[in-house]
Amino acid sequence: MVAMGGGPEVPSRGDSKELLLCVLPWPQKSSEKMMNEIRDEFPNLDLQYVQEKYEKRSDRGTMVLPEEIYKHAHVLATLHWLPPKASAVPELDLIQFFSAGTNHVAHHPIYKDSTIPLTTASGVHGPQISEWVIMMHLVHSHNYIPLYEAQKRKEWEGVAGRSVRDAVGQRVGVLGYGSIGRQVARVAKAMGMNVIAYTASPRTTPESKRDEGFIVPGTGDPDGSIPSAWYNGLDKKSLHEFLKQEIDLLVLCVPLTKDTTHFISTDEFSVLEKSNPHGTYIANISRGGIINQAALIKALETKQISGAALDVTDPEPLPSDDPLWSAPNCLITPHVSGNTAVYAERAFQVLRENLRRRMDGKKLVNQVDRKRGY
Amino acid sequence: MVAMGGGPEVPSRGDSKELLLCVLPWPQKSSEKMMNEIRDEFPNLDLQYVQEKYEKRSDRGTMVLPEEIYKHAHVLATLHWLPPKASAVPELDLIQFFSAGTNHVAHHPIYKDSTIPLTTASGVHGPQISEWVIMMHLVHSHNYIPLYEAQKRKEWEGVAGRSVRDAVGQRVGVLGYGSIGRQVARVAKAMGMNVIAYTASPRTTPESKRDEGFIVPGTGDPDGSIPSAWYNGLDKKSLHEFLKQEIDLLVLCVPLTKDTTHFISTDEFSVLEKSNPHGTYIANISRGGIINQAALIKALETKQISGAALDVTDPEPLPSDDPLWSAPNCLITPHVSGNTAVYAERAFQVLRENLRRRMDGKKLVNQVDRKRGY
Repeated sequence: MVAMGGGPEVPSRGDSKELLLCVLPWPQKSSEKMMNEIRDEFPNLDLQYVQEKYEKRSDRGTMVLPEEIYKHAHVLATLHWLPPKASAVPELDLIQFFSAGTNHVAHHPIYKDSTIPLTTASGVHGPQISEWVIMMHLVHSHNYIPLYEAQKRKEWEGVAGRSVRDAVGQRVGVLGYGSIGRQVARVAKAMGMNVIAYTASPRTTPESKRDEGFIVPGTGDPDGSIPSAWYNGLDKKSLHEFLKQEIDLLVLCVPLTKDTTHFISTDEFSVLEKSNPHGTYIANISRGGIINQAALIKALETKQISGAALDVTDPEPLPSDDPLWSAPNCLITPHVSGNTAVYAERAFQVLRENLRRRMDGKKLVNQVDRKRGY
Repeated sequence: MVAMGGGPEVPSRGDSKELLLCVLPWPQKSSEKMMNEIRDEFPNLDLQYVQEKYEKRSDRGTMVLPEEIYKHAHVLATLHWLPPKASAVPELDLIQFFSAGTNHVAHHPIYKDSTIPLTTASGVHGPQISEWVIMMHLVHSHNYIPLYEAQKRKEWEGVAGRSVRDAVGQRVGVLGYGSIGRQVARVAKAMGMNVIAYTASPRTTPESKRDEGFIVPGTGDPDGSIPSAWYNGLDKKSLHEFLKQEIDLLVLCVPLTKDTTHFISTDEFSVLEKSNPHGTYIANISRGGIINQAALIKALETKQISGAALDVTDPEPLPSDDPLWSAPNCLITPHVSGNTAVYAERAFQVLRENLRRRMDGKKLVNQVDRKRGY
């Protein structure tokens, strides 16, 4: 190794070894355990770690690295940084993103003009985001907020705890049955709930019901065997058929697209109100734009739904004078549900899985379809 | 039927029919659906409903009923009221309590001097209390309280949400593996947690691991197949062996007895601290006396444990000047975790199960062993 005056080291490799270059925003020390696991499992790989540094969030991905660092890389693990163009990395045959999506690099030459396989860390958010959904559902259904406020007043006051309705027999409708929705389903079923699923396209065969992406071991619904019924479509009529199923907890985890913008609006709140006399509770962990926010405030004020838990709003940050902050039965958190202390550890698990598949010549997990965009 | 000047009606029965007398504190109307289900399933039963009324809670069970109402009863469903003595109910062969225990009638002649089979509604608390435990675990691990306070200030402030550690791979230790602990285990496992169980006596055979009591369908751990390890004993040495297993969430659901009074005290907090560098979170839904509360406050103040969620305290109500109210990382609710809007409905399910078993000559579920006391 050659020290470069405080800059990253240039990898020196034995001839037969392949270079795995990691360009990640965390200190190398925090990744050491996962890197050693890779060294143990893949003795043919040389690992090189460069900490990505930037001053402002908007500078992410703009760090300039000496060509020597990356020109012989076979595999790249990255969150934002990419080599300038494909010809600069002639041996590169896998780019593993540590993010769930690749929207942030969609205009980069590597994305637009190369055919280097790109894979994402999609699936790593299932546990923590599903926990956020279950937490909010329970905080609402167990009426915890007034109990918490009573504790602050040091008052042993249990009235708020008397109107609890537990989850057994309640129905959760998962709008977007991906890795997050599947883990919500797994926990909800363990709580005694009935699960129904909604997807863009029909899932009528066992194969189509499977989760083909990365799954945190021991979580999710790999076979799609949890839902008692499946619904699908991108038109409002199909959506309404789903919303008519007396849903107690409606979980929004569809991606935001032209089709799903304001997917839940005035008409949908009416359908929900008619279908469920107890009132549907809505949890949104996707994007704020899925819901027509003005219509949501009205639905909350007129009790068309029993409440809403939002980790995402439109816009973000939500301005301090937005009426949503104090809408009745509305709990808001500032886009934090995807956080977890083991995020990097879990993304390294996806990388390892793809290193295995690459070695065995198998189909990669979470490979991006450049045309489809994910 | 003969109206009795506003009092309860005297049942008039066909000769071949048996009388099921319900003496319950809820309006008859709220029980009508469940009573009709019993009428449909057991056409041989005549149902009579008397609403138990009392002025003060301390008067529960003291209502005086005319002998005509109960003297021909074959089955009694009750929460507090009992006939004065066994000779007053010569045909009675089953008393189904709608409470989980029978401590409140332990000095009554029917309990002390008769052999009429008594059954409880034990098991009906599993779903709602396990939900309370999971909710509190999540509120703590997702750092929700500061996020809620930020919403009240209308501030998009996510710092508190950055230190989340999700449940995958974490360990839950269930101290008292009964109906509540088993449902905590079911949900925790679905969240990706590892479960270890603690019981008073050893459970080494498949038979001994089973839950023989009433189980809300679709919940719990009927076979005892969820725990990765079982521990047992009522002595401190055995307890410490369990507490040494690096427990992240310790759930207290043992009954309060002489043996379990202050079961968790100074020494136990030390064992937990040494075993788990992240800090154990403790949830108590049993009785306040299980924990030495002064030692708990000290353990919270010195961060020997990461926090505590308490639905029970010692004493109850907790006086407003008790230091526990504001101990760090301590969430308190006023003994509400067992509440659910479907409590009566679920207790009627236990009654139906026992009516079936009685008809088929099978062993009753939840039968009280008068000597053992439960």
